[in-house]
Amino acid sequence: MRTLALAVPEHLDKEVEVSGWVHRIRELGQVNFVLLRDRSGMVQLVFNEKIDFTPESVLTVKGVAKANAKAPGGAEIHPTEVKVLARADLNLPVQVNQDPDKYPLEVLFDYRHLSLRMPKLRAIFQLQSSLLKYLSDFMRADGFFEIKSTKLVGTGAEGGTGLFSVDYFENKVYLAQSPQLYKQTMVSSGLERVFEISHAYRAEKHDTPRHINEYVSFDVEMAFIESDQDLMAFEARLLDYVFTQVGLHNAAELEAWGASVPPPGAMLKAPIVGYDEAKDIIAKETGKKVFDINPEGERALSDWALKEHGVDLVYLNDWPRKKRAWYSYPSLDGTRTLSFDLIFRGLEITSGSRRINEYAMLQDALPKFGITEESLGFYPQIFRYGCPPHGGFAIGVERLTQKILGLDNVKEASLFPRDRKRITP
Amino acid sequence: MRTLALAVPEHLDKEVEVSGWVHRIRELGQVNFVLLRDRSGMVQLVFNEKIDFTPESVLTVKGVAKANAKAPGGAEIHPTEVKVLARADLNLPVQVNQDPDKYPLEVLFDYRHLSLRMPKLRAIFQLQSSLLKYLSDFMRADGFFEIKSTKLVGTGAEGGTGLFSVDYFENKVYLAQSPQLYKQTMVSSGLERVFEISHAYRAEKHDTPRHINEYVSFDVEMAFIESDQDLMAFEARLLDYVFTQVGLHNAAELEAWGASVPPPGAMLKAPIVGYDEAKDIIAKETGKKVFDINPEGERALSDWALKEHGVDLVYLNDWPRKKRAWYSYPSLDGTRTLSFDLIFRGLEITSGSRRINEYAMLQDALPKFGITEESLGFYPQIFRYGCPPHGGFAIGVERLTQKILGLDNVKEASLFPRDRKRITP
Repeated sequence: MRTLALAVPEHLDKEVEVSGWVHRIRELGQVNFVLLRDRSGMVQLVFNEKIDFTPESVLTVKGVAKANAKAPGGAEIHPTEVKVLARADLNLPVQVNQDPDKYPLEVLFDYRHLSLRMPKLRAIFQLQSSLLKYLSDFMRADGFFEIKSTKLVGTGAEGGTGLFSVDYFENKVYLAQSPQLYKQTMVSSGLERVFEISHAYRAEKHDTPRHINEYVSFDVEMAFIESDQDLMAFEARLLDYVFTQVGLHNAAELEAWGASVPPPGAMLKAPIVGYDEAKDIIAKETGKKVFDINPEGERALSDWALKEHGVDLVYLNDWPRKKRAWYSYPSLDGTRTLSFDLIFRGLEITSGSRRINEYAMLQDALPKFGITEESLGFYPQIFRYGCPPHGGFAIGVERLTQKILGLDNVKEASLFPRDRKRITP
Repeated sequence: MRTLALAVPEHLDKEVEVSGWVHRIRELGQVNFVLLRDRSGMVQLVFNEKIDFTPESVLTVKGVAKANAKAPGGAEIHPTEVKVLARADLNLPVQVNQDPDKYPLEVLFDYRHLSLRMPKLRAIFQLQSSLLKYLSDFMRADGFFEIKSTKLVGTGAEGGTGLFSVDYFENKVYLAQSPQLYKQTMVSSGLERVFEISHAYRAEKHDTPRHINEYVSFDVEMAFIESDQDLMAFEARLLDYVFTQVGLHNAAELEAWGASVPPPGAMLKAPIVGYDEAKDIIAKETGKKVFDINPEGERALSDWALKEHGVDLVYLNDWPRKKRAWYSYPSLDGTRTLSFDLIFRGLEITSGSRRINEYAMLQDALPKFGITEESLGFYPQIFRYGCPPHGGFAIGVERLTQKILGLDNVKEASLFPRDRKRITP
């Protein structure tokens, strides 16, 4: 019966069996120390004989747990039986027991099977796993259904640019940029409140610390809302829950990165700033003329929110129509949209809006964006048979992970990142 | 403040507000009845005036809830205010208030935005949403991490056939057939126990009620197992939990299809039958010579399990090596594998195995299957640096949904199915 490394101190003076990887070997001659690593943490093994296995080999060890204040966790094992389950080559291309900062990102990605063994890097994906849970739990408790929509589509939600094409038997289809059209279809189909966590694809050529070409999108769509205000209020409750849960249950992962989450309630204090007002704030903060809200502007706005409202979170709404997707619901005068972004620690992590839900309004909107009804396939039909007012938003899961832990590059929050050049491992 | 249809009987003689779709209009002259449908169910509205909206239009209605034993749920609303939020065209290509059996499957798929409004079809995806929750909940409670691995791969786990190709900038990549190589990588990388729920793709040309080209795969991989016995025991506990939860919380969806789940404990009684023994049983049951275990054989085996063990579940293991994937761990004599299938109500819903975890064994195995080490990219490297014994399995989410509800065709369990010819909606 296996005991996890973290639980060894609970079994003092008893026989335990542990399994894991050899993290570090320290040979002092008479007495030799081995640090064994498993998914829970580390435990020290104390040998009197010579060590005949290599670092990163996999062992199952039986022995007696003994108290030792100097050992990690306050306990160590004096082995009586050692089984080498898998022997590691001596030449490790990445030293697992070193700090990941010693290696360029590209090396960490090239040797993902080794670099992910580094406890600090593993912590990223332990946190991400928790985020998927917290996000889903909140949605379900609020009456949302989880959907899985197709990723093989005839057209892009954003109008045909930035799509990867797929040879599909005799046809050409595209990888979905987002489940936008499908989640709206599900609202119209009577599920009313849906969420989806799936991969999304953007064939964008830029290579920045903010972009990856394949990412995990957490998508929300809900019926019977009136405006973007309803959506922002909902997302505030959602992220308040997520941040609170992370604070309660992911202390180890936060500590590995010296990170912290916004405290409970912070999300509910995020200011909502209109587009024009935001430009004024950015101009004042940066001392520069502002034509457009670019990444630098988002950071300035975030700094302002922290200074003025004590939270590193700010909603940006009232966007001009031509800066937003064609499906965004226009303001009464037609120049603005009921749409918003959420900026968290200087990075946009959410984009959302009420959507056009009337067929006539859609027909009016499409030509303004140079889009034909035909190019959207089945989609315009969903508005002809009773589509309630609705809206939604999406959160990039890697970006959320990145900003919680303070990672420099969003690719670090992807297990196997895909960018312009990287298609392996 | 909106009240859901199902909750109206809790508000007798009080004013309520409901929102939903006009499911049915019954005009009797003096008094007219409207059945309003929302995600929770239906509520009857009673009007004295003429009805001026069409079926499937979306309404928000205020009125007083009154007891009426003859109304669905025992209550009805006498409206004081009706707002038509979205008007539906009169000519519905699919009548939502009819039985879906009246329409060919292809019509139901063509008009998915309407057919999914049929309560019976919606029930499929309400159940599926619950399945995703139960599966995840069990895994997390057992210490598994949820991962999201890339779907853009350089090679296929099954050796290069049946892959859809993607134009990825200057490169050609493929849509992953399964997360097989990546979930193994994560085990080797120290997460030890992982699961993933993501899309998977098979470019197979056959069009059967058992196949779709894009499906949702629930994948499990775990370290420190010894054989397929550990995996079968684990899956039995998992599915016992899932079936029990469905029985407790999804009575409405089961009822819509006249379906039931195996009772608590049934999964733990599923017999384990070796490949040769299974052939004998099938021969005896069908009275035919058996060369191979085909779909007909799986059904016969399932019938036998029901007859002999009282459960419509049977594990089939001890598969000959050449019938299984190259990564399956061979038996001691090299002719068999530590692999298994799970057959549920006559259909294979799971395939699993212990995997080869030693580099030398992999090098020995690949030529037997005509696969070169180079064609597998990074994958062989994960075995060089300490990869523990491990194994896993996958459950097709659509197949599980199908067999629980008794759907004829697996495509019915996919929101937007993709087959050889269908790429819309």
